[in-house]
Amino acid sequence: MYPILTVGSVAFDSIKTPFGEVSRVVGGAATYFSVAASFFTGIRLVAVVGDDFSNEQMQVFEGRRIDLAGLQHVSGETFRWKGEYSSDLNIRETIYTHLNVFDQFRPILPESYRPTPFVFLANIHPRLQCEVLDQVAAPRFVAADTMNYWIDGTPEELREVLSRVDALVINDEEARQLSGEANLVKAARAIQQMGPSMLVIKRGEHGVLVTREDGFFALPALPLEGVADPTGAGDTFAGGFMGYLAAAGEVTDTTVTKGIVAGSVLASFAVEDFGLNRLVQLTPELLRERFAEFRRLTYFDAL
Amino acid sequence: MYPILTVGSVAFDSIKTPFGEVSRVVGGAATYFSVAASFFTGIRLVAVVGDDFSNEQMQVFEGRRIDLAGLQHVSGETFRWKGEYSSDLNIRETIYTHLNVFDQFRPILPESYRPTPFVFLANIHPRLQCEVLDQVAAPRFVAADTMNYWIDGTPEELREVLSRVDALVINDEEARQLSGEANLVKAARAIQQMGPSMLVIKRGEHGVLVTREDGFFALPALPLEGVADPTGAGDTFAGGFMGYLAAAGEVTDTTVTKGIVAGSVLASFAVEDFGLNRLVQLTPELLRERFAEFRRLTYFDAL
Repeated sequence: MYPILTVGSVAFDSIKTPFGEVSRVVGGAATYFSVAASFFTGIRLVAVVGDDFSNEQMQVFEGRRIDLAGLQHVSGETFRWKGEYSSDLNIRETIYTHLNVFDQFRPILPESYRPTPFVFLANIHPRLQCEVLDQVAAPRFVAADTMNYWIDGTPEELREVLSRVDALVINDEEARQLSGEANLVKAARAIQQMGPSMLVIKRGEHGVLVTREDGFFALPALPLEGVADPTGAGDTFAGGFMGYLAAAGEVTDTTVTKGIVAGSVLASFAVEDFGLNRLVQLTPELLRERFAEFRRLTYFDAL
Repeated sequence: MYPILTVGSVAFDSIKTPFGEVSRVVGGAATYFSVAASFFTGIRLVAVVGDDFSNEQMQVFEGRRIDLAGLQHVSGETFRWKGEYSSDLNIRETIYTHLNVFDQFRPILPESYRPTPFVFLANIHPRLQCEVLDQVAAPRFVAADTMNYWIDGTPEELREVLSRVDALVINDEEARQLSGEANLVKAARAIQQMGPSMLVIKRGEHGVLVTREDGFFALPALPLEGVADPTGAGDTFAGGFMGYLAAAGEVTDTTVTKGIVAGSVLASFAVEDFGLNRLVQLTPELLRERFAEFRRLTYFDAL
């Protein structure tokens, strides 16, 4: 079992969906990732919060295997994001993004973090992703997330990241945009040419697709009646996926496949309530039960 | 092993996709369905063609287990359809639909067809679907397809069909439209209240979802690099699905699950070339190989 180093946003989110509304709840990619992955292994978090991020908010990390030595507390306001979802939850409009303390953030790894073998670079400026990688000593497996904003806005810096990672975790539209290929098989191959040997393509309500040595693995999403809030589902998925891999200690077709299921299990819970509400209530028993649900959903006998 | 009775269109299609163009090739829902299902069991076809449908065109049915006693040859032109696909194949524009001989079509079942236990009502006017059902003696399992045109235009006649079928095979947008529910779990339940105990939801490049006694089964589509023409994929899927069920002779969770895979296998081939070109070349060996491919794509071990 190896620990995971992650860098990304810790934020205050305000979220409106057809099923309710919350304001100024703890969110951010690195938060969702860390909470999810901590069910499987220890996490070393690199991020920044402002002085409005109080002990009450810090509770989300407490009692979990999340090392906060790399969480900088600085003067100013924490990163804030507000988003609103369409009636079918498939379209998200960003009302505002205030970088606040994240604007001047420079990731500095505590000495104890440097030898971490598994690394997840959540969706932030690719230059910051590279700065983190520069400080890690001989990582064994590095995965990164990114988004259309960086694909369009900082393509060269993103190429540098891609040349240095083992896996890229993005959604299907981003895969098409990054590769310029409408067909996902061609898109995957084109992105693999840019560096990452593994591509994990998130398809929202349609599940996930991953490249393996022995061809693609595809997992549908669990059909859920009670989706309350999709915020953080992708980061939660990444946390479950990386957490499973790091706990297994090796990246093989078998661990990748089960890791994809583990990530989907966590994400299927995350969307059932607002923010981190559902995630923080989970138990290993609930995770095992839902893993079995995914198997019932997808299993069929050989002919 | 039971035979299947099917009613639907036999047509001349003209198709344009980013990968090529064909004109006046044999198509139609009942054609795709029959060719696909005939790999598993015998088919009894009910349809109509005009006097422009020559022996050359009839070759598509020859050498297969397709009974043509119910195929009416009448004076006039065969049903014609022309469609054009967007660059990513996800949007299809109908350039024209000429019903021609289909306009006056009244399905009349040959006496030998009446006791058929498995029935598939392809996408035609719900009144015609009912007329066929009226003539079948004690069917064991009836499935129907439909489309937005009938959901909007003939809702009462469609409700009559739904009250008389065991399964409805439609795509996800149609399921949402018919039920008025954005959430597919709720949509499935609402449609089951209308009559069919089984709902098969086709999701195009995202695969298929089916209700079972023991909860949903979901199968992703095979990631394909060489999709040439999606025309007929849904009818081909239905043919493989119903063909497998009828050959198995019983409708259980196990046969439904494998039937969904069989349908997806056939559909995955159908889209690789224009019209029926790929389907008519298939062999049982190729079907078995692709079934195994679907299993590699989706299989994972229990925890």
